[in-house]
Amino acid sequence: MHASTLGATTGAALVAVADAVESAARVVAETHGCEIRTIEAIEGAPDVDAVVICTPTDTHADLIERFCRAGKAVFCEKPVDLEAARARQVMQTVATTGGRLMVGFQRRFDPDFRALKAVIDRGEIGEVEMVHLISRDPGAPPHDYIRRSGGIFQDMTIHDFDVARWLLGEEVETVMAQASVLTDGDIEKLGDYDSANVLLRTSSGKLCTISNSRRASYGYDQRIEVHGSLGAVSAGNHRQADIELATGSGYTRPPLLDFFMTRYTAAYAAEMTAFVAALSEGGPMPTTGEDGVRALELAEAALASVRTGAEVRVGEEVPA
Amino acid sequence: MHASTLGATTGAALVAVADAVESAARVVAETHGCEIRTIEAIEGAPDVDAVVICTPTDTHADLIERFCRAGKAVFCEKPVDLEAARARQVMQTVATTGGRLMVGFQRRFDPDFRALKAVIDRGEIGEVEMVHLISRDPGAPPHDYIRRSGGIFQDMTIHDFDVARWLLGEEVETVMAQASVLTDGDIEKLGDYDSANVLLRTSSGKLCTISNSRRASYGYDQRIEVHGSLGAVSAGNHRQADIELATGSGYTRPPLLDFFMTRYTAAYAAEMTAFVAALSEGGPMPTTGEDGVRALELAEAALASVRTGAEVRVGEEVPA
Amino acid sequence: MHASTLGATTGAALVAVADAVESAARVVAETHGCEIRTIEAIEGAPDVDAVVICTPTDTHADLIERFCRAGKAVFCEKPVDLEAARARQVMQTVATTGGRLMVGFQRRFDPDFRALKAVIDRGEIGEVEMVHLISRDPGAPPHDYIRRSGGIFQDMTIHDFDVARWLLGEEVETVMAQASVLTDGDIEKLGDYDSANVLLRTSSGKLCTISNSRRASYGYDQRIEVHGSLGAVSAGNHRQADIELATGSGYTRPPLLDFFMTRYTAAYAAEMTAFVAALSEGGPMPTTGEDGVRALELAEAALASVRTGAEVRVGEEVPA
Amino acid sequence: MHASTLGATTGAALVAVADAVESAARVVAETHGCEIRTIEAIEGAPDVDAVVICTPTDTHADLIERFCRAGKAVFCEKPVDLEAARARQVMQTVATTGGRLMVGFQRRFDPDFRALKAVIDRGEIGEVEMVHLISRDPGAPPHDYIRRSGGIFQDMTIHDFDVARWLLGEEVETVMAQASVLTDGDIEKLGDYDSANVLLRTSSGKLCTISNSRRASYGYDQRIEVHGSLGAVSAGNHRQADIELATGSGYTRPPLLDFFMTRYTAAYAAEMTAFVAALSEGGPMPTTGEDGVRALELAEAALASVRTGAEVRVGEEVPA
Repeated sequence: MHASTLGATTGAALVAVADAVESAARVVAETHGCEIRTIEAIEGAPDVDAVVICTPTDTHADLIERFCRAGKAVFCEKPVDLEAARARQVMQTVATTGGRLMVGFQRRFDPDFRALKAVIDRGEIGEVEMVHLISRDPGAPPHDYIRRSGGIFQDMTIHDFDVARWLLGEEVETVMAQASVLTDGDIEKLGDYDSANVLLRTSSGKLCTISNSRRASYGYDQRIEVHGSLGAVSAGNHRQADIELATGSGYTRPPLLDFFMTRYTAAYAAEMTAFVAALSEGGPMPTTGEDGVRALELAEAALASVRTGAEVRVGEEVPA
Repeated sequence: MHASTLGATTGAALVAVADAVESAARVVAETHGCEIRTIEAIEGAPDVDAVVICTPTDTHADLIERFCRAGKAVFCEKPVDLEAARARQVMQTVATTGGRLMVGFQRRFDPDFRALKAVIDRGEIGEVEMVHLISRDPGAPPHDYIRRSGGIFQDMTIHDFDVARWLLGEEVETVMAQASVLTDGDIEKLGDYDSANVLLRTSSGKLCTISNSRRASYGYDQRIEVHGSLGAVSAGNHRQADIELATGSGYTRPPLLDFFMTRYTAAYAAEMTAFVAALSEGGPMPTTGEDGVRALELAEAALASVRTGAEVRVGEEVPA
Repeated sequence: MHASTLGATTGAALVAVADAVESAARVVAETHGCEIRTIEAIEGAPDVDAVVICTPTDTHADLIERFCRAGKAVFCEKPVDLEAARARQVMQTVATTGGRLMVGFQRRFDPDFRALKAVIDRGEIGEVEMVHLISRDPGAPPHDYIRRSGGIFQDMTIHDFDVARWLLGEEVETVMAQASVLTDGDIEKLGDYDSANVLLRTSSGKLCTISNSRRASYGYDQRIEVHGSLGAVSAGNHRQADIELATGSGYTRPPLLDFFMTRYTAAYAAEMTAFVAALSEGGPMPTTGEDGVRALELAEAALASVRTGAEVRVGEEVPA
Repeated sequence: MHASTLGATTGAALVAVADAVESAARVVAETHGCEIRTIEAIEGAPDVDAVVICTPTDTHADLIERFCRAGKAVFCEKPVDLEAARARQVMQTVATTGGRLMVGFQRRFDPDFRALKAVIDRGEIGEVEMVHLISRDPGAPPHDYIRRSGGIFQDMTIHDFDVARWLLGEEVETVMAQASVLTDGDIEKLGDYDSANVLLRTSSGKLCTISNSRRASYGYDQRIEVHGSLGAVSAGNHRQADIELATGSGYTRPPLLDFFMTRYTAAYAAEMTAFVAALSEGGPMPTTGEDGVRALELAEAALASVRTGAEVRVGEEVPA
């Protein structure tokens, strides 16, 4: 998907693809008319200015460091790593190499969410007081994916953590969370959860709730609501079609789009455009490695809160 | 309001009113054509079968006990008392006197909420997994009221606690909560909060979020959403009028009803009808003293969680 | 229903009922605690100030005249008569007897429609340019009723004609209409239609569409939209409950209320209150006999347009 | 816009552009990397299989004929000509030359409208009985455009006429219409209208209303509703963002998209894809010259009805 997006991004050209799975590399190369190269070749390639990392999570940290050392600008999918401490190290490497890193939190680039943020920034709801985020996936990913994902908080809630920070406008101080396995007993065996609620509180007392489920029969459910001193603003879901059928059974609208790539097509395009623009114009990265680390810290705090039954201060050392 | 509702309830007649504020008693007596009597007189009155208690919270427990001992059926506004322990005592008195007590959780009688509950009961969303409740008042009550109210969890969230138990269909085991003062600094001086988020978890792992604010510029915001294994069901707000204006500024619908009595008019009527029906037909009380105590325990647990930063087991002894 | 409404109207008391069907009279008398009298007795009764006529349409004109001559104020259900010419005569009688007549166009008293009208009156949509009315019944009335009703334009569209005049704010000059029998072939045998579309145009060029169907599987469909120079305003339908169910089949809200008495409960109450208030305070009738005649003229023009295939000027002599 | 769309259409390549305005041709050539040629050159070009005509309406007929004679497949923007008779001639030329012609009614390709049509085709609303179309432009086009456009019925309503035929599923027999100048007095001087309502009736009695205005302060208003024997289905508008702001003034959503190219971006792409697919696969044209002529006949009938005040049979000779 990033290859397609890049192809349509002004100022960018896809030069080469590297993929551990050769057939996957070949599909990209053929569809988008680019070369297949090894990671080593890309590191040394004078015709490559920037790389887009969309590999499994446990390879992110190493790859970011390698490409930063090779002088390439890096766009990396979230999360930076499975552990915040390692991610902090990566930030060091980025800093010492003078590297440029953008972490892929595409929701910040969704047109509706941006319009919602603009309403807040224009002061139309006054001071932000409470943020409510609901994210539900149509269904859980494969067990293999879950096993390498770091768990629901690092894999799924991490998007909400980033959105919460973006909308609260200040850092989160304390986290509380409850979680359960309600949709698929096997997820418990993997040491993970499929249903989770999280509370966040900032130092000035702003509050946030996040609710996640790995299963929603009606599609990919993605909602934001922000309540402030003068009003509230919300952004809703995207349906498969904007029609309504009325019969004796009632008024029915189609289910939601059921895939994150369809739901966030415009966001992914805007995200890549913003990355290329930041490189071309030399401006700041719109979402930084620091954003990646902070979201990871919130994920770790949430997991610690579920396990210990205590409110957890963000960034605090927590018992394993 | 209960006097009006009683007047329109088949099978009930308002005989007498007692009020510490004489002028208030007179207004009721004149408007509804009933007598003014002392509490003592009502206790001994052979023409009174049942009493409706809508006095300040700190008088509820004593009045319930007095009227139960006098052999009157009792309808009492929530909460039963400011402390769950005292409320438990009252239940004892109700039991030993063979009394009949209904606690006023009118939301269970709201036509939309009943329709939502019926959808769940018919199995249309499968197994209930997560409940989300948002309740926001248009504005905080007077400081004098707050001072005697027992705080936001006992006064305001208590309705949500009751609705949560009703919809989750099983008892809550653990509670987490965060709260702040965001709308009015004076509320902090009263030792209370105006903004609160609560997480609930049942023994089987069902989850719930509750979010409260004492201020909403757009009216009395009352929403329920229940997510289950096969789908979700939600009930929304009531507007001042169901119209929509479209101009160059966008599409605007009127704000919400801004007073709980207007919002829940139908619920209050249905509640009183259910009380009278239970007495006439000898059936069980639709909302019981036990419901009142359980909601109080959740309120105490939430407050304890805010104060201690720990997940609190319901009914557990908590440090003052 | 009017008996119930009257019972709850401040300043009014139901004294007596007359009904050609004795058992129907008895039900009203017993339910509402009033006497059964003949029409003659009511004409002469000193304890009766006003009468409410809700008999079959073909008796309206005579009854209005009788009661006006007897010095009673009259509320009469629409339409005044099956023929505009006869209705005009009745107006003469009302005028010469100094009578007071209100014709029952309850939609003008619906809270949502009044809120919509208030938006227009405050100038929020600028100059009214186009009005769109959609009215669909859940099902056709019994054939016996249809036979005496004067046809769809006089029986059903007449409400829309009145609302159109109210919202356009000036008199209609020309009418075009098309009609069909689509839901029940027997309606054709009765010489009537079950589906009709009407166009109205005022002298200044304001335009209106009305669409009617005798059948809507999803309930009693009643919508208004007014488009003006600065914007548009619309009023929508009333559902059986304000809930929404989301499943794999989509998002479903309940069907509409399916009976005009349920849909317009508040309107009927407000209408009767307005009648009683006009009598008590001596103010003008909120909907007059003239309104009744004008709506009838529009109905006749619409029928003439269907039959002749020509645009018809309102009030013009049309061939039978 | 068609040049952009063609660039993204699989199986198509933009070879050359011709434009009477040289600078316009240059922009297209530079943006899309194609040549500038004369119409004559394109007629004779072996590397051109098909042409897309998006010139002023009064040039359409001649261009279609020229390119058909030159053996090119033709996509032409609506309407085929300002007069149905001339358009009928063009169909003759298409037929005798064995040409292939698609007329650009992009609304049939809008994803929401297709979803609505699919609901009808699956029988979910039973037999179609009534179609309601509302189309309002944000503002009138320039007077010069209006002067050459053939008037509101040929320029604007023509889309609704095509959609009506598509959804009614049978040909229209009679037309009635009323029209006014309400938004801009100068439009009257051009002999045109800016506000129009049309009634359509098919031979089996199916009914349709169309309402048009050249001005809507709230954006590009495009709605369809189809009422059938078992239910109704509707398709709504597209907003600038799917967010909602709640304040003391009410609940506000952004205005509609205010430009037809933005509103129908997906439709234009799907339309061009369908044209290319029909050429590649040799299948039937999804919208034909016959569709173009029929829509024109309805436009002429509507105008005749406004001018004569009579119901007009479609295709009938009407006095000038």
